[in-house]
Amino acid sequence: TLKEDVGALHQSEVGDLLEALMPEQRRALVELMGADFDFTALTEVDDAIRLDIVDNMPNEQIAQAMQELDSDDAVYILEDLDQEDQDEILAQLPFTERIRLRRALDYPEETAGRRMQTEFVAVPPFWTVGQTIDYMREDKNLPESFSQIFVIDPTFRLLGAVDLDRILRTQRVVKIEDVMHETRHAIPATMDQEEAAQVFEQYDLLSAAVVDENERLVGVLTIDDVVDVIQEEAEEDLMRLGGVGDEELSDRVLAASRSRVPWLLVNLVMAFLAASIIGLFEATIQQIVALAILMPIVAGMGGNAGSQTMTVTVRALATKDLDIYNAGRIIRREIGVGLLNGVIFATLIGIVAGFWFSDPDLGGIIAIAMVVNMLTAALAGILIPLLLDRFGADPAVASAVFVTTTTDVVGFFAFLGLATWWFGLL
Amino acid sequence: TLKEDVGALHQSEVGDLLEALMPEQRRALVELMGADFDFTALTEVDDAIRLDIVDNMPNEQIAQAMQELDSDDAVYILEDLDQEDQDEILAQLPFTERIRLRRALDYPEETAGRRMQTEFVAVPPFWTVGQTIDYMREDKNLPESFSQIFVIDPTFRLLGAVDLDRILRTQRVVKIEDVMHETRHAIPATMDQEEAAQVFEQYDLLSAAVVDENERLVGVLTIDDVVDVIQEEAEEDLMRLGGVGDEELSDRVLAASRSRVPWLLVNLVMAFLAASIIGLFEATIQQIVALAILMPIVAGMGGNAGSQTMTVTVRALATKDLDIYNAGRIIRREIGVGLLNGVIFATLIGIVAGFWFSDPDLGGIIAIAMVVNMLTAALAGILIPLLLDRFGADPAVASAVFVTTTTDVVGFFAFLGLATWWFGLL
Ligand SMILES: [Mg+2]
Ligand SMILES: [Mg+2]
Ligand SMILES: [Mg+2]
Ligand SMILES: [Mg+2]
Ligand SMILES: [Mg+2]
Ligand SMILES: [Mg+2]
Ligand SMILES: [Mg+2]
Ligand SMILES: [Mg+2]
Ligand SMILES: [Mg+2]
Ligand SMILES: [Mg+2]
Ligand SMILES: [Mg+2]
Ligand SMILES: [Mg+2]
Ligand SMILES: [Mg+2]
Repeated sequence: TLKEDVGALHQSEVGDLLEALMPEQRRALVELMGADFDFTALTEVDDAIRLDIVDNMPNEQIAQAMQELDSDDAVYILEDLDQEDQDEILAQLPFTERIRLRRALDYPEETAGRRMQTEFVAVPPFWTVGQTIDYMREDKNLPESFSQIFVIDPTFRLLGAVDLDRILRTQRVVKIEDVMHETRHAIPATMDQEEAAQVFEQYDLLSAAVVDENERLVGVLTIDDVVDVIQEEAEEDLMRLGGVGDEELSDRVLAASRSRVPWLLVNLVMAFLAASIIGLFEATIQQIVALAILMPIVAGMGGNAGSQTMTVTVRALATKDLDIYNAGRIIRREIGVGLLNGVIFATLIGIVAGFWFSDPDLGGIIAIAMVVNMLTAALAGILIPLLLDRFGADPAVASAVFVTTTTDVVGFFAFLGLATWWFGLL
Repeated sequence: TLKEDVGALHQSEVGDLLEALMPEQRRALVELMGADFDFTALTEVDDAIRLDIVDNMPNEQIAQAMQELDSDDAVYILEDLDQEDQDEILAQLPFTERIRLRRALDYPEETAGRRMQTEFVAVPPFWTVGQTIDYMREDKNLPESFSQIFVIDPTFRLLGAVDLDRILRTQRVVKIEDVMHETRHAIPATMDQEEAAQVFEQYDLLSAAVVDENERLVGVLTIDDVVDVIQEEAEEDLMRLGGVGDEELSDRVLAASRSRVPWLLVNLVMAFLAASIIGLFEATIQQIVALAILMPIVAGMGGNAGSQTMTVTVRALATKDLDIYNAGRIIRREIGVGLLNGVIFATLIGIVAGFWFSDPDLGGIIAIAMVVNMLTAALAGILIPLLLDRFGADPAVASAVFVTTTTDVVGFFAFLGLATWWFGLL
């Protein structure tokens, strides 16, 4: 039957299936599955789809399901609900469960505390490896899967951690404190998820202890969820550089339009600014129409060169490869690249334009304007993201519009201004 | 001492340090560390830096170091060397070591076989959990770390795998075949690394068996290296959309310039194409200079709207969220968004332009041209990446230039053409 087939799928496959269905079919499938519906599938779908499904469900059913989930998955589903629904669902949970979820929900969004799982294995340092193994063989309340055992003192202060392969290689009589490594990579619960992901990448972690402000173990962050964070953050930067907001593939026309209007609006204002620069040279253009034909080339090439530098800069800032220690060197390099590419393309464009309009002067003027604009593009491409980052703004969001506006304005002004002056049309 | 301090650092910290140093200091540091230099640090630096360090080192020293490394790290360092150096280094390795590395190097670049580690733990299905644990306690040749044990038959055919936490929870007398799960997620050695990474993401794997064409276990792929693949692939897409080649932050001016010239060159040709469209309307512009002032707005807004759609499309293709099953729906949505945003911005621009030049006709003409170009942008933004993908090209590389060229050409032609016709300037 359909119910059995879907029941046999992996959570992520159920997620893909839900995303492929139309909204009505989707709700019908969830209803059909009834108590067999695997709520972890909801952590694998677009936000809008998750909300749609959960909003159409009685809070009792959600509360029931939450008790089956790892705490991090439960929090992931609950965090987007209205405060009211959240409270009602939490009120129906057993005390300890409620406390666990509340604790994670109390940490700010996109922090390690919000993404952590509160199920973990922790043992005292004086246990032996044998005792620890026996404990794991008997306890029925272990997390569904784990790759590390934490070592704590009676007040839950984190003392260290042992990887499972270390346990398996060690003789039963050895004490845990003798095989544990002191966790240098414990993650404060308030750390931003992106920063936590960088710790995982740097030290190749499978899981990491999450600790509160008193160094007490409150949860564990696992690599599978960190991988999702890495993907989300990479996607966010790509979308922002492309001028798209918090948009999802499942969004309908209105939502998608709304995510794109703000950036188009900012660009429109900037486009009128650039147009008004051209307006200054109305008289010049009337006499030499070739200028109108060539000016988009100067502006456009500058825009492209600026985008290249900006892309490199934004990425390097996101991976923390660019910082105050090497900013000077990178700025100098970009100026070098801007000059070099400026001269290369100035020569090319100058020659082509000169022949096209049989006017070597015009070729010379566009060449000079190109060098000026390519250099401007290099400076704007590196300095604008650096400054935005310095002042705490996300360089991926705002850089593009500032960079292309700069290259448009400078490109038009340099080319038309030079031509006006050279041909004596002032 | 400096040597001790550096020796105490994590491999990735040594990598960061090497990246921060000037080339001469870098080589001096490697020399100072001598036999204590941790070659795994070389897997954490830019390609150019790794090559620079390794090229300045006698092949004997490299061969010596390769024996200490996990096979995947050794392959990562060897793969970029000339064939000659590679052969010389391999020839100095013990037989089994040489065979292992050769096998990985024989798989194509960017495949699972090239990225796998050939050190793993494998046991027969009839062993008990107790036997397995005893074996791990005694064998000194285990991989440095592992999170899964593979189960194989005498011919190395993969039968299944057991996670370490499963072993630890199980009584000693239980047979391995009774706790193993049949690995549905074994990865063919020839699978592209990006596809392998998607399997890891989808099924939340910590490691996965890599098998040859006869289903024989040849290696293991681990999540820490998959995380690096995910980062690389995300970076690649971002850079390509930004028109940047295979560039690294440590590149000097010449290398960086070289990575950016090709895209600028293609753009230049396209810019001349767009300029020649403007050239068709030389006479019109001479009579109504306002057209020259306004035309970059029409082209630019189309370019931005097209980039938005293209960004969403390229990302969705990369994550496999967009496929033939939903392409139709997404295309319809993008047309909807293009029309809606087209009407919104056409109205805005039409009013402003009409008042600016006190000419309602001009406002009407630019408004119609805007709707046309925004719709074109939507179609180009979704169809161009889809078609490139369909024909096996990487949509991230070439989409941008085709999309903006389309919106430039259509924008200029629609606006100037309409104006020429309406004002009877043919
Ligand atoms: Mg969420
Ligand atoms: Mg963030
Ligand atoms: Mg790493
Ligand atoms: Mg989880
Ligand atoms: Mg998950
Ligand atoms: Mg970010
Ligand atoms: Mg690094
Ligand atoms: Mg490589
Ligand atoms: Mg690839
Ligand atoms: Mg996953
Ligand atoms: Mg590795
Ligand atoms: Mg590594
Ligand atoms: Mg790719």
